[in-house]
Amino acid sequence: MFSVTCVAPVNIALIKYWGKRHEELILPVNDSISMTLSTDELCAKTTVTASESFERNRMWLNGEEVPFEEGSRLQRCLKEVHRLAVANGSQKVPPTWKLHIASVNNFPTAAGLASSAAGYACLVYSLSRLYDIPLSEELTTVARQGSGSACRSLYGGFVQWHRGALDDGSDSVARQIAPSDHWPNMHVLILVVNDARKKTASTRGMQQAVKTSQLIKHRVEQVVPDRITRLREAIASHDFQAFAEITMKDSNQFHAVALDTYPPCVYMNDVSHRIVSFVHDYNDRMGSYHAAYTFDAGPNACLYVLAEHVPHLLSAIQKVFPNDLADGDTYLRGLPIPKVQMLSAAIGFTGCSC
Amino acid sequence: MFSVTCVAPVNIALIKYWGKRHEELILPVNDSISMTLSTDELCAKTTVTASESFERNRMWLNGEEVPFEEGSRLQRCLKEVHRLAVANGSQKVPPTWKLHIASVNNFPTAAGLASSAAGYACLVYSLSRLYDIPLSEELTTVARQGSGSACRSLYGGFVQWHRGALDDGSDSVARQIAPSDHWPNMHVLILVVNDARKKTASTRGMQQAVKTSQLIKHRVEQVVPDRITRLREAIASHDFQAFAEITMKDSNQFHAVALDTYPPCVYMNDVSHRIVSFVHDYNDRMGSYHAAYTFDAGPNACLYVLAEHVPHLLSAIQKVFPNDLADGDTYLRGLPIPKVQMLSAAIGFTGCSC
Repeated sequence: MFSVTCVAPVNIALIKYWGKRHEELILPVNDSISMTLSTDELCAKTTVTASESFERNRMWLNGEEVPFEEGSRLQRCLKEVHRLAVANGSQKVPPTWKLHIASVNNFPTAAGLASSAAGYACLVYSLSRLYDIPLSEELTTVARQGSGSACRSLYGGFVQWHRGALDDGSDSVARQIAPSDHWPNMHVLILVVNDARKKTASTRGMQQAVKTSQLIKHRVEQVVPDRITRLREAIASHDFQAFAEITMKDSNQFHAVALDTYPPCVYMNDVSHRIVSFVHDYNDRMGSYHAAYTFDAGPNACLYVLAEHVPHLLSAIQKVFPNDLADGDTYLRGLPIPKVQMLSAAIGFTGCSC
Repeated sequence: MFSVTCVAPVNIALIKYWGKRHEELILPVNDSISMTLSTDELCAKTTVTASESFERNRMWLNGEEVPFEEGSRLQRCLKEVHRLAVANGSQKVPPTWKLHIASVNNFPTAAGLASSAAGYACLVYSLSRLYDIPLSEELTTVARQGSGSACRSLYGGFVQWHRGALDDGSDSVARQIAPSDHWPNMHVLILVVNDARKKTASTRGMQQAVKTSQLIKHRVEQVVPDRITRLREAIASHDFQAFAEITMKDSNQFHAVALDTYPPCVYMNDVSHRIVSFVHDYNDRMGSYHAAYTFDAGPNACLYVLAEHVPHLLSAIQKVFPNDLADGDTYLRGLPIPKVQMLSAAIGFTGCSC
């Protein structure tokens, strides 16, 4: 019997991934760039056990067994890992031995924090440790086939997922742009916003966007490539002003494309938009960008802020949003106001580890 | 002393006007199409009096005097009307006589129902009656210089405002596509949604969109021309299915462009989006489009529906939105639920009249 336990981080996209050019291989219509968060606050944790005595593959997610179906993304990832194990001449664990996989997130799935990205990154990374496969660009293509943005969670720091051009997806890989210690005073605050509204799942939302939005094509071809170049430069030169503006604009444009989808997909709510207004007002008051927001396919805000500005920003947030927090439409993991600061600060960023 | 009193209708854009190519002349970046509402429910009413004894031009809006400043849009419209009066050889009222102008809306300005469009249309139409100038394409260019969409309120029925190509704006005119009796069973329901949020004024929002949105150019050049053609065909052939889809998509895209503006402009709120979801769900249930929404630069919904479907739609709305109505975040002109139906139905559509 062999067993391995690994953790994988959450990553937050700065240039958004929205839209696939191949559904099954999960090939994106454009490059994306993300920042990986520290696993100290938020992570997925997976234990994979291989044993000659197991009769079949089984998987538990947050304690509940989930089906391990033929043709599923889970199955697909496992097959790809087996292929890599053979290619690498790895013989540590016989590929015929069945697996028991147990994965947990230390944050609520309902928080909408891309749990599937951390989850699939953790699964693939754990399997790679089990079968003794080195972390490589090719391994990111395996994670990608579990959940697109999972490929970015294999690395710490700033990571670019390349669209690629090949039909088989072998060049649609994630690469680290800068390691986790490159911009050590970069911090993230996550404001979790409660939301009762039924959302369109990301997979479906993307499909509909590619099919029906007349603006997404222009975004993909004319807007994103330039933003990728400029964000890379901003990261390389620690230019928070450029970083903030590109990040906020790309978040807005992703939600604009979702709204241009038919029927429209709406992920932000009134509280999200109040956070956006707050950030712009706050930056105006400060005289330069001290904070930048980004929103994924949900109402929660991720705010980027440099370490030295965290205390001031937090106190400003708590002044502006006490009523919302009190009447229950904004909360952080269900905890009362004084805890916002404690739990929302995800400081530093690291990749997968075992 | 001469006096004239006219009424002008509200018009609701189906293909949205958003963005100017000339600020002062109010020349739009794209064509737009609107439907003019009946003046029975909603209208602006203006009385213009000319007298040799008046010492200066004065204007009252809803009972309050407003400044009549040199260089204002008001002044500009008056000058243009005087120019047309001379060109038309009109001698009824001496152009040296000063004017007293009193204008009222029979609906709250706060309802966000394009009161300036009806207001300027009414002003210009009243002046044209006073000075005996015929209603013409040229007169629509005068109303346009008061408030862009005002040019569309001079006519009843379906109206197209042409972008035009000339620098002096003389070909940026409104023309009737179909008269008010062309589609007699076309009805509009207006759902007024309360909103506390501070909005970006339309003029500023448009300027910012043209300056900062990377998507608006694509909309203007690649999307709108085709939609104009197809909506004209849908109107000509009474094709409610095509009419509904084009109208909803264009409303969504206008709000997408507003969101892609930097900083973003957000006009719809959570209740607006719940109305959108409701309309899509309702149409799904009906098996075809029975209702179409459109939202201007505010949270209120205009729903298009054929006369024979009004009662069923109204009862469905009242089933879905009673809680919102009860807890105060959706209301119709501040009145309780049972009045929704009464006040929201603007049936039929007519142009200006005296």
